Amino acid sequence: MTPTNAQWRLAARPIGLPKRSDWEYIEVPALEPSDGQFSVEVEYLSLDPAMRGWMNEGRSYVPPVEIGEVMRAGGIGRVIESRHPDYGVGELLSGLFGVQRYALSDGSAVSRVDPTLAAPPVWLGALGLTGLTAYFGLLDIGRPEAGQTVVVSGAAGAVGSIAGQIARIKGCRTIGIAGGPEKCEWITEELGFDVAIDYKRRDLRAQLREGTPDGVDVYFDNVGGDILDEVLRRLGRGARVVICGAISQYNAEQPPKGPANYMQLLVMRASMTGFLVFDFAKRYPEAVAQLAEWLRRGELHSREDVVSGGLDKFPETFLMLFRGENTGKLILQLGEDQA
Amino acid sequence: MTPTNAQWRLAARPIGLPKRSDWEYIEVPALEPSDGQFSVEVEYLSLDPAMRGWMNEGRSYVPPVEIGEVMRAGGIGRVIESRHPDYGVGELLSGLFGVQRYALSDGSAVSRVDPTLAAPPVWLGALGLTGLTAYFGLLDIGRPEAGQTVVVSGAAGAVGSIAGQIARIKGCRTIGIAGGPEKCEWITEELGFDVAIDYKRRDLRAQLREGTPDGVDVYFDNVGGDILDEVLRRLGRGARVVICGAISQYNAEQPPKGPANYMQLLVMRASMTGFLVFDFAKRYPEAVAQLAEWLRRGELHSREDVVSGGLDKFPETFLMLFRGENTGKLILQLGEDQA
Repeated sequence: MTPTNAQWRLAARPIGLPKRSDWEYIEVPALEPSDGQFSVEVEYLSLDPAMRGWMNEGRSYVPPVEIGEVMRAGGIGRVIESRHPDYGVGELLSGLFGVQRYALSDGSAVSRVDPTLAAPPVWLGALGLTGLTAYFGLLDIGRPEAGQTVVVSGAAGAVGSIAGQIARIKGCRTIGIAGGPEKCEWITEELGFDVAIDYKRRDLRAQLREGTPDGVDVYFDNVGGDILDEVLRRLGRGARVVICGAISQYNAEQPPKGPANYMQLLVMRASMTGFLVFDFAKRYPEAVAQLAEWLRRGELHSREDVVSGGLDKFPETFLMLFRGENTGKLILQLGEDQA
Repeated sequence: MTPTNAQWRLAARPIGLPKRSDWEYIEVPALEPSDGQFSVEVEYLSLDPAMRGWMNEGRSYVPPVEIGEVMRAGGIGRVIESRHPDYGVGELLSGLFGVQRYALSDGSAVSRVDPTLAAPPVWLGALGLTGLTAYFGLLDIGRPEAGQTVVVSGAAGAVGSIAGQIARIKGCRTIGIAGGPEKCEWITEELGFDVAIDYKRRDLRAQLREGTPDGVDVYFDNVGGDILDEVLRRLGRGARVVICGAISQYNAEQPPKGPANYMQLLVMRASMTGFLVFDFAKRYPEAVAQLAEWLRRGELHSREDVVSGGLDKFPETFLMLFRGENTGKLILQLGEDQA
């Protein structure tokens, strides 16, 4: 019996913050795998700020999601039928399965999930692209040295919370910027950041000055906007600014706000560098092994903010990202807990 | 007999474009050198966009010129009296002698000028900090490879005209952005740039698209503002943006305009790096030797825009920089041609 597949397809290019009507909820019969394919039942969806960018037209690092296409998203699913030699029924896999209950795959860009090592949501968090993004962005682009000052924005978010912890593990003085006292307490008390800066308080500039008396050596930026501008004022000589994201600008209806203080790069002989985790694909195994080891030793904490309720809740859950309502990795659970 | 020293001292922190009244013209008796000092008669003043920044208060790579201080400037002067063991009367020297006719020096940050190798103005241009800035900024920060596309803004200016020529010498496809048909003709016909883009024409975006069909590998930016933003749209994968200056923003009365398209750094895995030539001081001899060799072989052209008329013309001549009225290195000649 062919199951019914529920999908969210892109219906319109959003202007500003996406609305529920920018997607269309559709129920169609699930497709059967052809030779070389398998089908998965998606159990967890990864909800990421980058998905907002995929909804826009225009040049980017991946093609935009087209109108009428299933919304692109990473997720974890279990193989329910296979005509692929390498993947068998029952295997748990991570991949770009899209915002839908059932997905077909030919195995490209799919990786295995080992639930004995960590629960499936962790494979979307610290052991997934989230953790890999933090790992390569901080270590390869930011190149922090022990004793240096590392500032992370979006520090209670998925990538930021991992990046800051890696900085702490590497012996850096670690300052996290987050919104509200609860997130700030979490990153200092649970994650071991040295200082939390609450950007929702008025005195961001003064907080930064107090928190970084010796200037900033590495700034791992997830937010852009005014926070980026304020941190640029604190750069130390030879500082590295890692551009990982700019969540404050993704829903801007005007052209995004560029960093007005970018000439501090000249004053401080500093650099600002963008990166994409995909370029490090060959080194994923090394990084996953290291991240798993830190998790096992309790030096690294992965927190997943798992929202249950199934596919129907996709639009509202996704928008939590832009309201700063998640702490740690935001995940939408599609199945039952027992599934 | 003690000569009279004419000086321009900073009188006010300019708001926007400096006015003549932001400096004060003063005549005072020239000071006699003490032990370990010498005095020079300044013959040529280097006029540089960076001087505008030195007039502002606030954190930068050098302290600001204080109100009442002689305006800071590089120049070339001849030793007229010496109580310094290393510098004798009649020697021609380059140094930060300030906007004045006579200067005292203890020899710090002073270098010898060899007029048999090149005329004194060239020692403020291709063989001075101008040429060194182009050399280290392009080669060490931009790291162009033969066959790559290098875009230079302010391409008919002092640093830009040298940077573009070095790119051409290194086998790069070289695109210069300049204002007006005369400058554009000069950089293509005389300096060997492959393409000139006239930013004063309306279709900057289209010109850039046509001129850089394969994208931009290195962008050497002297101007900032809208031109920086437009070039960011053309970056190729792994591009390097060299921040040398931002002349379009130095007189802004509002906070400077940051590069709104900076997220192209992420899309293109690109970097934006600031630098200061002073950090390369140990390698000046290597660079001067190379620049002199290129000049000698006729591969590199140094053009100096020498304005005569003496110290009285300092304010107006300086402001030529911000109106794009100079071509090549802007220099104010203080003495007679025969001096």
